Amino acid sequence: MTASLLLRNVRPLGGPATDMLIEKGRIVRIAPDQAAQAGVPEEDGRGELALPGLVEAHTHLDKSLWGQPWYVNEVGPRLLDKIDNERLNKRRLGIDPYRQSARQSIQSSLMGSTHIRSHVDIDTDHGMWGVEGVMKMRDEYRDIVDVEIVAFPQSGLLRRPGTLELMDEAMKLGAEVVGGLDPCTIDRDPKGHLDAVFDLCQRYGKPLDIHLHEPGEVGAFSMDMIIERTRALGMKGKVTISHAFCLGTPDPALIDPLVAQLAELDIAIMTTAPASRPAPVVKKLVEAGIRVCSGSDGIRDTWGPYGNADMLERAMFVGLRNNFRRDDELRIALDVCTVHGARVMEIEGYGLDEGCKADLVLLPGETLAEAVVTRSPKRRVVKAGKVVARDGVSVRTAP
Amino acid sequence: MTASLLLRNVRPLGGPATDMLIEKGRIVRIAPDQAAQAGVPEEDGRGELALPGLVEAHTHLDKSLWGQPWYVNEVGPRLLDKIDNERLNKRRLGIDPYRQSARQSIQSSLMGSTHIRSHVDIDTDHGMWGVEGVMKMRDEYRDIVDVEIVAFPQSGLLRRPGTLELMDEAMKLGAEVVGGLDPCTIDRDPKGHLDAVFDLCQRYGKPLDIHLHEPGEVGAFSMDMIIERTRALGMKGKVTISHAFCLGTPDPALIDPLVAQLAELDIAIMTTAPASRPAPVVKKLVEAGIRVCSGSDGIRDTWGPYGNADMLERAMFVGLRNNFRRDDELRIALDVCTVHGARVMEIEGYGLDEGCKADLVLLPGETLAEAVVTRSPKRRVVKAGKVVARDGVSVRTAP
Repeated sequence: MTASLLLRNVRPLGGPATDMLIEKGRIVRIAPDQAAQAGVPEEDGRGELALPGLVEAHTHLDKSLWGQPWYVNEVGPRLLDKIDNERLNKRRLGIDPYRQSARQSIQSSLMGSTHIRSHVDIDTDHGMWGVEGVMKMRDEYRDIVDVEIVAFPQSGLLRRPGTLELMDEAMKLGAEVVGGLDPCTIDRDPKGHLDAVFDLCQRYGKPLDIHLHEPGEVGAFSMDMIIERTRALGMKGKVTISHAFCLGTPDPALIDPLVAQLAELDIAIMTTAPASRPAPVVKKLVEAGIRVCSGSDGIRDTWGPYGNADMLERAMFVGLRNNFRRDDELRIALDVCTVHGARVMEIEGYGLDEGCKADLVLLPGETLAEAVVTRSPKRRVVKAGKVVARDGVSVRTAP
Repeated sequence: MTASLLLRNVRPLGGPATDMLIEKGRIVRIAPDQAAQAGVPEEDGRGELALPGLVEAHTHLDKSLWGQPWYVNEVGPRLLDKIDNERLNKRRLGIDPYRQSARQSIQSSLMGSTHIRSHVDIDTDHGMWGVEGVMKMRDEYRDIVDVEIVAFPQSGLLRRPGTLELMDEAMKLGAEVVGGLDPCTIDRDPKGHLDAVFDLCQRYGKPLDIHLHEPGEVGAFSMDMIIERTRALGMKGKVTISHAFCLGTPDPALIDPLVAQLAELDIAIMTTAPASRPAPVVKKLVEAGIRVCSGSDGIRDTWGPYGNADMLERAMFVGLRNNFRRDDELRIALDVCTVHGARVMEIEGYGLDEGCKADLVLLPGETLAEAVVTRSPKRRVVKAGKVVARDGVSVRTAP
């Protein structure tokens, strides 16, 4: 699935123009004016920016409505309204995880993402439907994007008996990450929920990525319990907390001790940079040495209509949410959607250096900050040395 | 400057497909299967959505860097850092108000805006440079967009002697709206500042649109003084408060009395729906009967790099900031960027009914909510009955 390619006249991360020789899916030489190689196709970079492949570190591939007729959203305001509405209507709406995850994955690839971490619903109404569908999809589309699967108890873990057994089954099937969800406010049993998901991590030797929407003091309490288990079980560097709205609480007395422990235990934070909620303060976390990644979350699903799978737009949202205006600040936002995400997903060979895997995006722009705010749709996406998308057209088609 | 046109197969506001006959810049008949008219060109609407022209109700045309080399932003964090940096570097950076306002106006038109309210800087370093430049531009480009000018004391009114006299000169030159700025925190003389701007309104019989970034209690204090003068001077319906971050304070005891008086005196609120600041709660204000409009604010200027002049993207930001997920909520966000803006600017003949001026946008999409979240670049823009932009190409070119 890997390819060779000589990329001419590209500007890695906005630096000087150079050529980039790719052999068997790896970057082997970065230097200007390289000699043509027999049998190696060439691509004119036109002096464009080269970025490492964008990293979509939090989405829900299995439940997008992408490519379906418009879904008129009339759902109630509570989190449980959205959870129940989705579970009860998924089959009726024809949200087939295989087809829908393929559609979204192609859209992600068009926008420049080369790696996706997807939470996939596990519940007693649908069993392994989601996991099996996304696994089938990723096998078929691995030439354009790498997908990592988080087994995700969207409807609750303990409150719906039988879900824990299904989570176990998903890990046996090959899910790479254990998921979890609001141990206090959804499962209403923080000890039970956290003991169960950490136990799965231990038994399968897998990392944890837990949704934590809980705000303020209750979120801080749950986070403290996650920290406690991470330390006790020696899971330093193996835990991600997604959303972590509680870290947006404007109270240093509450937040600072948590941040210090997140840094100490190398616990990563995922934020979508939501405009309507308190949210983790990205610069504060990054400066503390914490890996901060981002993602689109749900894209055009029964939860909400937004999303286009563009992680450059997401970097802009990170910038807007955090009042980043300076170029050095926008670089942080871009890092969140590239290298930080890669570190969270432990992607081998990520980057634009010699020796790295040739997963990258070319797009017009003078500087990295311009790339983020302009979000040009004129992108060329390279995966494992092969050009897989040009100007919004993929080499693959969706089912 | 007006034209006739028979638009076929369009869906006004997402309704059933119909034809729309435009004569001399006005919509005269909306009905399906209309007969061809001699001498009237036809345009195939392809079943697309028709929206009334988008309304950019708050921007700064005179100071965009659009089309200039990338500006590397290294500006300090305070509001005064940004104000001083801009004033001291405007000429050096070649930010010519005529050229730059033309560039941004064309971009706005491409994105579907047919009306713009622009604050234009008035200060003792630049005098009438901004106002004269934007006035020249609007005369030359009035075939594609209508521009309303707010005389805006960006660097302060009383703290920089001579500015008030320049404001007076700007009103004599023909500025349509009196501007103002943070009477407490910038001018540090709320009584003096507000008396001065309201006096200008009275003398020239013009409305007020005042920037109010002041947060929390101090913003509420300034707002209360604005309300007091609006009532005393009989200026009901003639005042807009822009930004109004103080209305985002989560304290009903502070906010509710202000909201009641804003509604009583028909004082409009402009919000950019900022992700990083407290912001007015749009649904609460709209439900109280208050006109809520929106705008891009500065577009790629020395204050910050963001912005593409797309008021559909702005409607999405309004939705994201206010956690709008339902289709009926997204309709509110779209109204903010269309009809509410038109009511704030008192645009005669605005809308898609028979008798209205033919200022409108066509774009693909099944529903209005889809138009907002998709923000398709494939737009056709009609101004006074003439197609002035197609798929990102304007009939006009920038200087």
